[in-house]
Amino acid sequence: MDLGKLIRHEVLVQKAYPAEITTCRIKLDANENPYQLPPFLQEKLFARMQDTALNRYPDPGAPILRKRFGAACGVDENWVMTGNGSDELIQILCASLARPGAKLLVPTPTFVMYRIIALNCGLDVMECPLDDAFDLDLAVMLDKIAAESPALIFLSYPNSPTGNCFSEDRIRAILEASPGLVVVDEAYWNFSGKSFLPELKQYENLVILRTLSKVGYAALRIGFLIGAPALLLELNKVRLPYNLNSLSQIAAGFFLDEEQAFLEQINRIVEERKKLYNALRAIDGIYPYPSVANFIFFSCTQNANHVYEQILRKGILVKPFIFPWINRQFIRVTVGSREENEAFIEALKRVVTK
Amino acid sequence: MDLGKLIRHEVLVQKAYPAEITTCRIKLDANENPYQLPPFLQEKLFARMQDTALNRYPDPGAPILRKRFGAACGVDENWVMTGNGSDELIQILCASLARPGAKLLVPTPTFVMYRIIALNCGLDVMECPLDDAFDLDLAVMLDKIAAESPALIFLSYPNSPTGNCFSEDRIRAILEASPGLVVVDEAYWNFSGKSFLPELKQYENLVILRTLSKVGYAALRIGFLIGAPALLLELNKVRLPYNLNSLSQIAAGFFLDEEQAFLEQINRIVEERKKLYNALRAIDGIYPYPSVANFIFFSCTQNANHVYEQILRKGILVKPFIFPWINRQFIRVTVGSREENEAFIEALKRVVTK
Repeated sequence: MDLGKLIRHEVLVQKAYPAEITTCRIKLDANENPYQLPPFLQEKLFARMQDTALNRYPDPGAPILRKRFGAACGVDENWVMTGNGSDELIQILCASLARPGAKLLVPTPTFVMYRIIALNCGLDVMECPLDDAFDLDLAVMLDKIAAESPALIFLSYPNSPTGNCFSEDRIRAILEASPGLVVVDEAYWNFSGKSFLPELKQYENLVILRTLSKVGYAALRIGFLIGAPALLLELNKVRLPYNLNSLSQIAAGFFLDEEQAFLEQINRIVEERKKLYNALRAIDGIYPYPSVANFIFFSCTQNANHVYEQILRKGILVKPFIFPWINRQFIRVTVGSREENEAFIEALKRVVTK
Repeated sequence: MDLGKLIRHEVLVQKAYPAEITTCRIKLDANENPYQLPPFLQEKLFARMQDTALNRYPDPGAPILRKRFGAACGVDENWVMTGNGSDELIQILCASLARPGAKLLVPTPTFVMYRIIALNCGLDVMECPLDDAFDLDLAVMLDKIAAESPALIFLSYPNSPTGNCFSEDRIRAILEASPGLVVVDEAYWNFSGKSFLPELKQYENLVILRTLSKVGYAALRIGFLIGAPALLLELNKVRLPYNLNSLSQIAAGFFLDEEQAFLEQINRIVEERKKLYNALRAIDGIYPYPSVANFIFFSCTQNANHVYEQILRKGILVKPFIFPWINRQFIRVTVGSREENEAFIEALKRVVTK
């Protein structure tokens, strides 16, 4: 057996996704909510789960959940699809559109899984660097759209790892110019309060992604896709029929029931974000960018890998970013609890002022 | 936006997978274990889950689980990959091997998802009818292998929907002749006691699939793939990093801890299978095939859709099969609890002897 002849080329040349398995005291690398559910809610949730007939397959289309989630977004259930995390929804989009020669266009830097999943599905990937303010470079993107007719564009809104929302009018210009789908990934929308949901019925090529991973449910892998029913009819053929397990379906319903408790945690994170930003700004050689997400992106004058490693020695995990085409180095830190953020700032100060 | 130009052709021409959502009193259509966990075990499992930090991502590679599952199969963790059900593992295999022009070979009838997932991943699908005993038609398959060099072959062992295990020597001949992967899907192996695990190290192109869906965990979507580490290195690039949620990981560990309780249920199913088979044989116009799985496939002289509908009217859901190339019609019934099986036999008798 010759794997070099069997495995598709795009896979062979790829490195495996470096999901962190480093053990650490304080985990600020993955944009998780630092707070667990309050114990009384955790208990209530598991009490609800405990009646599940584990021997039976999950509800294949999760219609009740889709209806409820749709209602919260002002659409009916035919506009909603559930996924095993939004990763799976990205995969379904890429697989469904992977006609021979089909292209993906993404700005860069952005969420790396767009590129990885698209390559694995056989799409050609075109990347377009963000401008100096980390906004979309509209002229270049419109040129690429006109020249290459990408089947798919992913816009992370707010963008990871940079933490900003791209200009609305630039996104609208892309929606208007694009012959393919434009997916606005609102994984972090709870922290920005900004959404393209109100535009959904103006642009038939607009698809919105949501996830419960950033608001306290990362363990459960629950993503939602919102888009036109005619599109979802096709995407549903590619979706594996039992993709969302029964317990995650129950937990998603519980989120809708108890949303206020989750939103309170989000408010705390938004408040801590401000403090963390100010603390970062006060450090010599550290230049944080304003963030409307649950993380902060900052550049540092020192080597980012070095800073990352030194901070990790103190038990705190963050994420370094080095881009060959940008003459600065960056670190992304998730907004943790107050104590976590303070410990991180303390550690960072020691590393950069040594 | 022109979906007809955007969505890949293989998806456009496909119907959506008809996952049953019919409500019914007795569900014998999906090869589920009819028994829930005993209450004390269900409680113990959820007590273990309840400590989960739901705000944190799952362990991306599930190494402890893979190690334990591997140990149960006589291999180390590098031979094991976990999936969101074996559906996802089938998808990872198809996507990884979908070089331009790559082909899948499957016998037919077999598990329909092989074909659907392969088409969605862009593989060409070749089907080879089983012989009159529902065994592999070795001469035809070897011809196709020689002529078309399929990258991938799926063999369901025992086969769904027919319920038999293909001859071992025919599978070995296919393993020897095939330049690509031969996946032996042992979803129902607990009911047959037969496995290709002992051959794993003789055939580097042998991949084995296992699932916990048929032994009592359908709700949780837990699949395992066992294959050579060099292959898994590539497949892992296509696997979404957090594909198995945290609660399912805990439940899979719990299965290994409490396997005896699950195996007792399996023994009960195997005993009921015998009774159900004999009861089917005793009905005029019903011809059951011997089964080593947790379901029985039978032909009927009446129209299978008619029989299916009449039985459904009595609140019992089974699955009809009509193949254009076979001059008989079939129904597959899952082995349920004794009461369920008796109710089904009663209903079937009334329908066919009317």
